Amino acid sequence: MKNICYAQSGGPTAVINESARAVIETAKLHPTHFGKVYAGLNGISGILNEDLIDTYAESQANIDGLRHTPSAAFGSCRYKLKDIASHREQYLRLLEVFDAHNIGYFLYNGGGDSQDTAHKISMISASLGYSLQCIGIPKTIDNDLPFTDCSPGFASAGKYLATSIREAGLDLHSMASSSTRVFIMETMGRHTGWLAAASGIALDIENPEPHIILFPEITFEKEKFLAKVDNCVRKNGLCTISVSEGILDVSGKHLLEKAEVDAFGHSQLGGVASVIANMVKQTLNLKNHWAVPDYFQRAARHVVSKVDLDHAYAVGKSAVEFLLAGKHSIMPTIIRESSSPYRWHIGEANLGEIANQEKFLPRDYIDAEGFHITEKCREYLSPLIQGEDTPPFHKGLPRYVRLNRKLVEKKLSK
Amino acid sequence: MKNICYAQSGGPTAVINESARAVIETAKLHPTHFGKVYAGLNGISGILNEDLIDTYAESQANIDGLRHTPSAAFGSCRYKLKDIASHREQYLRLLEVFDAHNIGYFLYNGGGDSQDTAHKISMISASLGYSLQCIGIPKTIDNDLPFTDCSPGFASAGKYLATSIREAGLDLHSMASSSTRVFIMETMGRHTGWLAAASGIALDIENPEPHIILFPEITFEKEKFLAKVDNCVRKNGLCTISVSEGILDVSGKHLLEKAEVDAFGHSQLGGVASVIANMVKQTLNLKNHWAVPDYFQRAARHVVSKVDLDHAYAVGKSAVEFLLAGKHSIMPTIIRESSSPYRWHIGEANLGEIANQEKFLPRDYIDAEGFHITEKCREYLSPLIQGEDTPPFHKGLPRYVRLNRKLVEKKLSK
Repeated sequence: MKNICYAQSGGPTAVINESARAVIETAKLHPTHFGKVYAGLNGISGILNEDLIDTYAESQANIDGLRHTPSAAFGSCRYKLKDIASHREQYLRLLEVFDAHNIGYFLYNGGGDSQDTAHKISMISASLGYSLQCIGIPKTIDNDLPFTDCSPGFASAGKYLATSIREAGLDLHSMASSSTRVFIMETMGRHTGWLAAASGIALDIENPEPHIILFPEITFEKEKFLAKVDNCVRKNGLCTISVSEGILDVSGKHLLEKAEVDAFGHSQLGGVASVIANMVKQTLNLKNHWAVPDYFQRAARHVVSKVDLDHAYAVGKSAVEFLLAGKHSIMPTIIRESSSPYRWHIGEANLGEIANQEKFLPRDYIDAEGFHITEKCREYLSPLIQGEDTPPFHKGLPRYVRLNRKLVEKKLSK
Repeated sequence: MKNICYAQSGGPTAVINESARAVIETAKLHPTHFGKVYAGLNGISGILNEDLIDTYAESQANIDGLRHTPSAAFGSCRYKLKDIASHREQYLRLLEVFDAHNIGYFLYNGGGDSQDTAHKISMISASLGYSLQCIGIPKTIDNDLPFTDCSPGFASAGKYLATSIREAGLDLHSMASSSTRVFIMETMGRHTGWLAAASGIALDIENPEPHIILFPEITFEKEKFLAKVDNCVRKNGLCTISVSEGILDVSGKHLLEKAEVDAFGHSQLGGVASVIANMVKQTLNLKNHWAVPDYFQRAARHVVSKVDLDHAYAVGKSAVEFLLAGKHSIMPTIIRESSSPYRWHIGEANLGEIANQEKFLPRDYIDAEGFHITEKCREYLSPLIQGEDTPPFHKGLPRYVRLNRKLVEKKLSK
């Protein structure tokens, strides 16, 4: 019997540990098929270092607690395996670790870059005749993975952002007669506007927030934007704005870009809210406040979507079931059957096709003017944010688990 | 029978509307003593404009909904009544409005500046022989009101911040091996460190966050701080920091101060997290993320403290009971009898003594080094954040009420 190696990659979400729990639980249901479930400490980088966590050594309470614990409980990484041709030794090392620990299954839980990594590992193991079933498990708050209707983690981050802009909007409404007129919330999402769009679901018959959304998919035109804000304040006395960190100006540049890039060559964004705030202040002379929730939006387990949590479990469970079925080099996807009532099932996509693709917000999810979402987008988003699942509170705060992360004894030299 | 005029002032909280609900409910219990409860639209500025909301015209569902609705539902303001000597006509106008609408009771729900306003109105009405009972109702997330053990609104904001730094800390823990090493959260609080301190309650046996807290009460020394961060990262591999917006450097200046000041002459702060982040990056070369929750911390009704909610109700109820008892020119206070078990009752303080005083974090609530809270502070904070009170969710998001705010017919000329 071969062991499973599971690892988490990239930015965490509020529900990725629910996928991990599903993997462990489902594997345990098949004790004659699978050995243990090991987890890479800090993703692929830990596996290269032979840092394998014995998940079966964790208490049942800890494993159960994964359901309500945000972050990547086994540790994550931003570490990209380089191309096979020039960095063959890295891949050989990985297979050496797998071989030393009798690992025949590799499950990589992450976004587009991670699916690319899983695909490369799948290819080289096949070409070297090492028997390894590789399955990707989708995860990204950015929701930019192709082939799946949505990615676990996105809906909870979206629910947090929509809740937050609604709450801040009420606050602004209280203050606008004599003080702050404009409130700006910055969302994550890199090059895609899914998270900014998700905040748009807060607008309904009873609530006007957000009034304006700025998407990376729509070129940011300063004059047009300021005219929109001015018009909104004249009409409503105030204006709430969701701005995606990834918006681009007419020259295709980020409004604010820090010099550094991460291991994948992505710029670290963040802080565009203050750029917008200064613009509004200087040009329109409107007092404003701005918020950058940053990690909060992906870690806010205290206000997740139950549907998202269900998706996260389902993709973890399905990944193990794919192993049982002898499948490999695929990723479970979420296939929507109907929005109302919401029905979905698990499908599959080839890792080779997913790798390094970004799924952008479709143009017909954004209104003609480019400043809000359409009814079609609302139909897409609405089912995803449904349902609550409050974590246990202890002494007034959410109680989250921290795993023991007991490492398996190393068998190889460094 | 005289009517009551209630108004909300300054920055809203997640629970101020619970004080409003208490005022309305308690007044209704005494129909032979009180007429109607009017609410000033947008605080004192609305009263000057004769914009009075008939709270009895709101549906019962709306009044009930105040319990779980953040913000100042009747509208708030940053508007300070100037001194009586030079702006006598403002006060006369106010009494003219009160007289026109048969108002014999004035309840002002706010922080230090608002208690000052209530006190001034109390004084001038007495000197002019206008029969008016003025009662202040405490409210401030900053917790800087004197004479009361705490101020409604503070504990919920503190609970939100402690929850958020715990969640972000777990996220950082996931990422620190290969990416972000330092996470910085900026808290409100102006000149006092109560909110930054409250985030410190997240640190317990199971959770190390936040590692460092920066208080306005402790002079910010750059070298000492950076050495502390460096040491923390060397020891733990990462560092989480709560920084109060109001921290001051050795020359007594804010690290980041915007040019504008509000109606009270207070600077609008915000953005110091990014200053700290740049410092950490440039000097220690540590990748970091930072969050500015801004309004979210005072509007996050979705994660309030039940104790705070109870306090908010009690001060509203007591204000009306003070009226019944013929008292005036006072503010109900929260008197702590014991921390464990937590016991408290309502006391009272004279408005004249409260006005424009700020209560700072006691030095013995901050540890010797100046970077965290003491056990004594934890004993103070812990009872305040206990208990949850989740608002109703509708279609995946919290459902908050928006009042009709039906105005009473005006009787005066502008």
